[in-house]
Formats: sequence, C-alpha cells, structure tokens
Amino acid sequence: MTEINSLKGFYDRYPEDYVSFRKLVDTVEETAKEFGFREINTPNVEKTDLYRVKSGDELLDQTYSFKDKGDREITLIPEQTPTRARLVQQRKDLKTPIKWYDTSKRWRYEDVQKGRDREFFQGDFDIFGVESVEADAEVIAAAATIYKKLGVEKRVNFLVNDRKLLESVLNSQGVEKTETAMKIIDDKEKMTGEEFLEELESEGLDTREAEKVDEVTSISGPIKETVEELKEKTPEAAEESVKRMEDLANALEAYGVEDLCRLDLSIVRGLAYYTGLVFEAFDTEGELRALFGGGRYDNLVGLFGDREVPAVGFAFGYSPTIELLKKEDKWPLKDVETDVYVLTVSEDVRDTGLEYAKKLRDHGLSVETDLTGRGFGGQLGYADSINAERVLIIGKRDLENNEVTMKHMESGEEEKLDKNEVINHLESENFV
Amino acid sequence: MTEINSLKGFYDRYPEDYVSFRKLVDTVEETAKEFGFREINTPNVEKTDLYRVKSGDELLDQTYSFKDKGDREITLIPEQTPTRARLVQQRKDLKTPIKWYDTSKRWRYEDVQKGRDREFFQGDFDIFGVESVEADAEVIAAAATIYKKLGVEKRVNFLVNDRKLLESVLNSQGVEKTETAMKIIDDKEKMTGEEFLEELESEGLDTREAEKVDEVTSISGPIKETVEELKEKTPEAAEESVKRMEDLANALEAYGVEDLCRLDLSIVRGLAYYTGLVFEAFDTEGELRALFGGGRYDNLVGLFGDREVPAVGFAFGYSPTIELLKKEDKWPLKDVETDVYVLTVSEDVRDTGLEYAKKLRDHGLSVETDLTGRGFGGQLGYADSINAERVLIIGKRDLENNEVTMKHMESGEEEKLDKNEVINHLESENFV
Repeated sequence: MTEINSLKGFYDRYPEDYVSFRKLVDTVEETAKEFGFREINTPNVEKTDLYRVKSGDELLDQTYSFKDKGDREITLIPEQTPTRARLVQQRKDLKTPIKWYDTSKRWRYEDVQKGRDREFFQGDFDIFGVESVEADAEVIAAAATIYKKLGVEKRVNFLVNDRKLLESVLNSQGVEKTETAMKIIDDKEKMTGEEFLEELESEGLDTREAEKVDEVTSISGPIKETVEELKEKTPEAAEESVKRMEDLANALEAYGVEDLCRLDLSIVRGLAYYTGLVFEAFDTEGELRALFGGGRYDNLVGLFGDREVPAVGFAFGYSPTIELLKKEDKWPLKDVETDVYVLTVSEDVRDTGLEYAKKLRDHGLSVETDLTGRGFGGQLGYADSINAERVLIIGKRDLENNEVTMKHMESGEEEKLDKNEVINHLESENFV
Repeated sequence: MTEINSLKGFYDRYPEDYVSFRKLVDTVEETAKEFGFREINTPNVEKTDLYRVKSGDELLDQTYSFKDKGDREITLIPEQTPTRARLVQQRKDLKTPIKWYDTSKRWRYEDVQKGRDREFFQGDFDIFGVESVEADAEVIAAAATIYKKLGVEKRVNFLVNDRKLLESVLNSQGVEKTETAMKIIDDKEKMTGEEFLEELESEGLDTREAEKVDEVTSISGPIKETVEELKEKTPEAAEESVKRMEDLANALEAYGVEDLCRLDLSIVRGLAYYTGLVFEAFDTEGELRALFGGGRYDNLVGLFGDREVPAVGFAFGYSPTIELLKKEDKWPLKDVETDVYVLTVSEDVRDTGLEYAKKLRDHGLSVETDLTGRGFGGQLGYADSINAERVLIIGKRDLENNEVTMKHMESGEEEKLDKNEVINHLESENFV
C-alpha cells in the first residue's frame, strides 16, 4: 500500500493548526463587519477569459488553467478582483457604496518557497462606486484595525502614497517620463542607490532627472509633516493631489490610525491598474513579504462591462501576517478546547452521561463523552489531551448519593455537586 | 465589451444571499463544536490517484481532473473522505477518537439541475478510531441537532438501518444473495413493487426469496418497537446485530433524538464501503434529495495506508437543507444588517462623524458612514437600504448644543442625546 500524499504547495490543516488560523479569519471578519463590509462568496473556478481581460495571456502561465470536459477554458481563481468586477457589472441595481469582504482560497502555479504556496488564503476588502477620500481612509483604517485587534500594530509600517501626487511632484521637478520612472521605483528597494540611478538613465531619463526621482522617492515620514514638507519643497505640485493627501490624513486621524501611517513616496505598487491611492504594510524589521496591499483602481471595473465604477480596496495576506505573529510570540492565537468532558466511571452510567452531555450542549458548551469504553484513567488522559477545562465525573455510587463530581483540570480540584444542580451551578459561575 | 459570465453550475453569492447561507454554516459549526468535533481544513486539489484507490477510474468521469503544468494528474476534490483517510494515515500520533468537522466546497462535473451544481458546499462530520455504538449515536445526534436548531426537525424523516442487521434478517429468511439484493434494494423506491421483484429475480433470486426481500425491506417504524417486531418475526437473526440496534436506540434516547428516528430496513445507501450503520434523512413530503447521509465505514481508511481505522460519519447537504427551509418559510435565515449608520448633515462635521463611528466600532458594532458626500435624504435612504437599525445624526447646530440625534429606523422615533453620552446611553439599553 503506497500512501498518497498531498500536492506540493498545498496544506493539510489539522485542528491544532486550524483553530488559530480560524481565529485569525474571525478577527478579519469581525473587522469587516464593524466597518460595514458585507461578506460575499464567489466561484473558485472562472472562465479563463476573465483573466485575459486584465492581464492578457501573461498571468496565465502562473495559474492553474485547464480545459474542462466540455472543452471550456477554465482557471482556478488566482485573485478575486476580476470576479468582483464581473459581479459589479452584472447587477446594475446595487446601491453604492458597494462594500464587499471575503476570505477564501486562491491558486497560483509558482515555485513553492517560504510564504509562497500554490494554494493560499486571501482576504479581500473593496468599496465600489465612490471616489471619495473617505472611502480611501476607510479601507486603510479597516486594514490597520485588524493589526490593532491582533495587538501588533506597533510592529507594522503602514505606508501610504498616491500615484497622482507622486506624478505631480515628479513633474514639478522637471521629470516627464513618470510612467517609466514608476516601474523602476517599484523595484527601488531591491537595488543599490547606484543601480537605481543607472536603471533610470538606461530607460532614457537624464542624470538630473534620475537624481530628482531618487530624491523625491526618498521622502518618507508622518503624513501631515511630510505633506507640509512637500508644500515647501515643491510648491508647483498640483494643489489637488496635495489637498487630497491632507484630507486623507484628517480622515485617518478621525479613524484613530493616522499616527500609525507614513507617507512614503517610493510606494507605487507594481500593478498598473492603480489610479491614485496606493498603500502597503510591512513588518518593521523588513523581513517578511507585504502583510497587505491595496489602493484605488478607478478604471478596472470598466474593463469588464459597460459601466465605469471607481473602486478602492486591499488584499489581506494571511501567511505573512501569521509569520509576523509568530515573530512576536503571539502565535498560536488559540488552542483547541473542550469546555466539559463527561467521564463515565462504568458502563451502566453511560446513558446518564449522555444525558448530562445533552444538557450541557443545549447550553452551548463544547462537550465530549467517552466513545471507546475505556476506563477512568484512559478517559482522564483523553480529557487532558483535548484540553478539557472541566471533567464531569459520573459514578454509580455518587449518583446513589444524588451527587456528581466536577473536576477543574487546571487546578486539579474537585467538588461534589447535587446531581440536579449542575447547570445551575455552572450558571452561578458564569461558565454557561 | 463582452461581459464574461460565470460558469454553468457555479454560483455568485451576493451579500443578501450569502448572509443566510453563512448563518446556516454557523449553525452547523456550532453543533460540531458542541459535540466536540474539531474543524480541519484540507486542500481543494488532490492527486487524482487518491480517488483511484477507492473508486477506480469510474468516478473520475464525473470529476474535474486535469494535468497541471508539472504534468501531475490532479483533481478538484469531489468529496473529502479520501483526503480525511490520507490525513488519518499520515499522523500515527493522533489520539482517538479523532472527531473532525469541516464545511467547504466540492466539485463534480455532472449535468446541472435543480439542487445539483458543479460547485457546491458540503459539511463533513466523522469520528475515526472507535467502533462503539456510542460513536454511531453521536453522529446521528449531531445531524439531528442541526435540524432541531433550525426548528424543522419535525419536517424531517431520520431513517436508520444497519447493513449487518439487514443481512442477518435476510439470511434468517433464507435469502443468501444479500450483496446482490442490497444493490437492488438501494433503488427500491424508484421502482414499482412488480419491477422490484422482477429485478431481484433477474439477478438470480427465486420468487420466494424476492418476496422475502420485499417483505423485510418494507419494515419501518420507531426503532425500539421495530426491533421488538424483528425479534418476534425473525428470532433466528443474529443476536449481535439486533442488540447493537437496541443499544443505538438507548443511546439516541439519551441524546434526546430517538423519537425523531425510524428504523427502516430499506435504507442501504449505495456506496459499497459502508460496513454497518447507515442513515439518511429526507423531508417528510419526500420532495427533495437526501438532506444528509452517512454511516459506518470501518474498512475504508485502511485502503489509504497501513493502519486499519474504524470510522463513522455523515455528509451534510446544504442545498437540499436550504430547499427544505424555503418550503417551511424559514428562509432567508437572516438579513443583511448594520447596527448604526452615522449620518453627517454637512461636510464640516464629517470627521466628527468618523470619530463617533470609531467609538461605536470599538464596541463591536457594525457601523457605516457616508462615503459619497450625499445629502441628508440620500444618506437616510442608503441607511434604510442597508437595514440600519439606528441612525446617529450629527449636525453642526446639535453639536453646538452638545447634542446628537439618535433615530430608531423601525419606529421612526428620534431622541436627542448628550453628545458625550452616546456609548453610555447605548450601554444602558444593552445595545452595545
């Protein structure tokens, strides 16, 4: 018998792993709910053409794309944005703002390395239908709130920029080839200063322009301060872009997250479809991949139908966030737990044990009972292995005295309870 | 611009649909937790060989099976049982009983019809590692509890049988070809009485045997009564099988679900791998597909590795259960809801509005604010469209009087609140 194992880059999550993962998803979901993002659920398989609209055939090399038995070209979704664009186009009746959240799996056929799997979870938050800076602030605030809830917001650099602002600052400094520059700026952190300048010049910028690009993209600091700095240094930059960044800072302040964010003019995010705001977050030690990233993409939805719909959103990365939590000794978030294990001392009190289990479950507790017929010690060992908080011991002699025994597993203490007062007793302790 | 739509048999779930679906998943999950089933998460793609172990190449016609870019044969999971068997074999250290729960998507390439999609959700509950009747009872009790929580348990026929019991009863009546008979019994309800007898005879049973099969598989009734009936009618049937069914009835009684279940000797469930208990549930009007189904399969896990591991479990069908809830006017389970919409009367109080929103969110409420810059009426209309329970109205004049206005959307009533006492006020009402 050959054992068949899982595919490379695909993970089996046993309960002791998944309980923490699920707690993280719950935290993200709770944040989404508080901010009024509604949960959606979409197919895990789409027509391959959906991805050609945005990316041409290039992206397809990195996807799971096939022909199905009906000879249709299909793809396991590598991202949810095209699907969301399709959903927005399909329903003209949706009231704006459309605020959607979802956590689900994505698939990419890439080389497997640390933090890069072929099957992975991603969370998506988007607001469709509004162009306002308040919407920009809201998605950043939602993202930052997740890290606040996790208690690691101080270990995260939240970096914000606006492509239009960058463009107008570059223009004001006499740099014209901003589109070319942006592509290179996206890779700036991977290069030495010299390489960066060389790369810019090799793409047709002159030395003075290249130096200006380097100078401008080195600007980074608290948003409000940095905006003031920009106003002084480049008074020629478009007022509108500067004003929008100021408004963003004010809105972020009202959300209580402005002090966490920095304006960093080197952030452009590679994806060409961003049209204004861009933001991403890294661990402060710069060891991990981006924790999340997003921005405004006002022209994308229009590619998928006859309506132009502005949009702003971000994708939350579960794997890098878990790596961060591990570095901060905050992982696992939760252990597998059972509230009560009902231990039956002998065969003839088993059904009585099941009745107690039923009552406890009716009160919402997580309860396990013996399914194996093992003895006292075996049951107690199992109760310990599943981290049961309490063990309710049902014995024949106890029952004859109208009693049962409650064992507190952490302290090891035991107390006798009136056999009819178990629930009342647990209620008096606020255990149920 | 051609709009690209979703694949046939794949569904887009918008928030107004998904909120109820999610509530149903939560109910199933809550039940799993109360019974001590642990959530796992497994790959949505497996090596195709995993399915050949159990079913040969036959099942593969109905799956999404492909070659990936590395020329590996892969399959979108049509069911989770082989994956679970793989997981159990992989980890020799797992303590028994191993109790696993999960709700996730499955894919089958079949003709699309009502209640049969190509992508669908399924819930799986299994107990591995124990042969006891208590484990049998627990999975049935968990399944029945879901319907109790949904308030439709009286609209469901919970049908229980044991293949070994059926076999021994048939043997006691002189029927030898029980394996052949079982295959035909599985289709009994699709045939007339005459067709059933003909089919049995065409497969080699003589007339007397065929009639006995018909007679035995017509036995159906409350478990305890029916067991008594069997004892009388067929005293020759194996004591062990009869005793196990009696024990099951007692355990189900302790779980408080025995009165919901019937012993029905025509239930065999097609899948050849069931080795003892089998059960399934239908709506009482018999209009829908099986709501759930399962049984004991003690020999399956052994096919996937070097350990024999007994198992009992069931698969919960979301689609037919939703159909049942619709018939009972219990669907949707839930509406999209927002606790508070913060309405800002003018531009200059927007940031104040955001601060209120933050405070309310910090108390766990679902809050939306204006992202569009629209006027009073527009905001109120939007608040209504998202079913906001309350609207907190922030106006400049109110603020100057140290006040804000709380509007109750259902009654339309408004009350003025001290602008610093909003949270205290909501707390006094138990709203937060």
